[in-house]
Amino acid sequence: MTDLNALGEIGLIDRIRQATAAPTHPETIRGIGDDAAVFDWGDAYGLLSTDMLVEGVHFDLTYVPLKHLGFKAVAVNVSDIAAMNGLPVQITVSVGLSSRFPVEAVDELYDGIRAACEAYNIDLVGGDTTTSRSGLIISISVLGKVPKDRITYRSTAQVNDVICVTGDLGAAYLGLQLLEREKQVFLADPNMQPSLSEERSYLIQRQLRPDARTDVVHELRDLNIVPTAMIDISDGLASELLHLCRQSNKGAVIFDENIPIDDQTYLAADEFKISPVTSALNGGKDYELLFTVRPQEFERLQNNSRITAIGYITADPSQIVLATKAGQQTPIRAQGWQNG
Amino acid sequence: MTDLNALGEIGLIDRIRQATAAPTHPETIRGIGDDAAVFDWGDAYGLLSTDMLVEGVHFDLTYVPLKHLGFKAVAVNVSDIAAMNGLPVQITVSVGLSSRFPVEAVDELYDGIRAACEAYNIDLVGGDTTTSRSGLIISISVLGKVPKDRITYRSTAQVNDVICVTGDLGAAYLGLQLLEREKQVFLADPNMQPSLSEERSYLIQRQLRPDARTDVVHELRDLNIVPTAMIDISDGLASELLHLCRQSNKGAVIFDENIPIDDQTYLAADEFKISPVTSALNGGKDYELLFTVRPQEFERLQNNSRITAIGYITADPSQIVLATKAGQQTPIRAQGWQNG
Repeated sequence: MTDLNALGEIGLIDRIRQATAAPTHPETIRGIGDDAAVFDWGDAYGLLSTDMLVEGVHFDLTYVPLKHLGFKAVAVNVSDIAAMNGLPVQITVSVGLSSRFPVEAVDELYDGIRAACEAYNIDLVGGDTTTSRSGLIISISVLGKVPKDRITYRSTAQVNDVICVTGDLGAAYLGLQLLEREKQVFLADPNMQPSLSEERSYLIQRQLRPDARTDVVHELRDLNIVPTAMIDISDGLASELLHLCRQSNKGAVIFDENIPIDDQTYLAADEFKISPVTSALNGGKDYELLFTVRPQEFERLQNNSRITAIGYITADPSQIVLATKAGQQTPIRAQGWQNG
Repeated sequence: MTDLNALGEIGLIDRIRQATAAPTHPETIRGIGDDAAVFDWGDAYGLLSTDMLVEGVHFDLTYVPLKHLGFKAVAVNVSDIAAMNGLPVQITVSVGLSSRFPVEAVDELYDGIRAACEAYNIDLVGGDTTTSRSGLIISISVLGKVPKDRITYRSTAQVNDVICVTGDLGAAYLGLQLLEREKQVFLADPNMQPSLSEERSYLIQRQLRPDARTDVVHELRDLNIVPTAMIDISDGLASELLHLCRQSNKGAVIFDENIPIDDQTYLAADEFKISPVTSALNGGKDYELLFTVRPQEFERLQNNSRITAIGYITADPSQIVLATKAGQQTPIRAQGWQNG
């Protein structure tokens, strides 16, 4: 018998994928291997993606408000659709509940789910509610849509493409560190009030209530720019960049000083004695988009405050490196810190 | 605070549905309220449905082989698509696993999932694997397709329609009783071998590895018959008939002697001192189809061994009754015995 931990999540997914038969339906354009599956929806492509969140693994209800959790559960699914350059249309929501939850808690969770449906313009069309012996389980599936000439896979980056990220990175990870620290203080002395100051509110919000970047999908449509490749940053920039490069069979150079990092992230990183760049590379859960565009297209994006160029695609797939201002280059390795 | 158990699953679903905004996308044809959501897939309708199975609630791994469980998890989702008169195209599979499962167990589960994909001609296109603190969780979403002129809702039964069921009913429930009894024997004395004889194999199979009736969907297409209403029998004939009648605003008469019941079900019902008709009405988990057809259409079905006429639709929605041979009529009430 082989221990599941020895194989790891990536190993397990590879094992499942390898044993899975190739798609047979003409409607199936792309199966396992990208942020969402792709099917032929007549004059557009349809996108299908799913995510499961488990209490004690993906969230800790000691400090995660149910309304934020509902919002986040939808947002992380929408992020997968955005990563294909698509927009969400419908979701189904399955919830497993242990009897310790009162009805009011379920209402709160669904308030957050509905707030996200409104924010991202999604129809909630179905789902399932069931008993769970142990805590809360949320499984959401999302159906999205993308014009056929705008679909963006992970595997199609080209040499010299500009590598871009949306928003800023590393904040969600430091938000989690703050919340975990306050939890320990609270557990040691339940009379202590949490000392989460205003100056930290951005980090907390990034962890508890991340936003999917459908705004950038809209913006790219308005500018008539189709990225050459795209992936969402759920497991940290390093891991996602490696996926994108490996699936595109390309290399990359990232400039560490270009990685967009918020001031609050710098301050908290200093306090926790973590390098802010490491938090951006390996922290995860930022749900920003990582994408590549042709250099001539990038000109139309370079004054956009939501998008930052952090490097470029190279030909040698064995060279995926972080470059410092001083010109030093170090290989980028995946090192997720969080489960999920 | 209100206890979740006081509200019940149906009450909770109603509460969620009532608070959910009406669909806004022109692509959304039907949201919550039928076996699957319906969207406009160009020259056909698309169907989207989801189900979550939780260890200790929906299955007991003491007697459920993982391969059968994988098959069943797909089949119950396919059954929802069949209930809309559609056929499945793609599924996504999310699995939550505690570390007690070795890799070989995951392989077995996926063997069953893949066997079902082959049996029902489905592309496995994505999913999610995650850690679970407590046992196995399987959440499957299925994308299906149905020609626009063949879609069948629950809410459109008409007066005088013939009420039909596929296969036979009550067997899955008695299969569960057998398995539970053997489990108790085994727990009392682990050296005892289970005494599940050949004569009981049909009941066990119905419980462990039910089949979705896509064969009947194909047959109805071949005969060019579109049912007026349809639902799948996951919670027992009584509960599903009540859903169909209420959503159609009609009544029904069911003849108890017409309800199709297998010989093995009769024998086991006798042994467990359960009425076989009660097992058919309230047992659930048979995953057969309950549908209505116009009387003139039924003529072309009446020699079909897979389909049995059990009654007819009436005008008065307050009269949903079971009629005996002697002419006695009793109201049909929903009384699910099982969770889920």
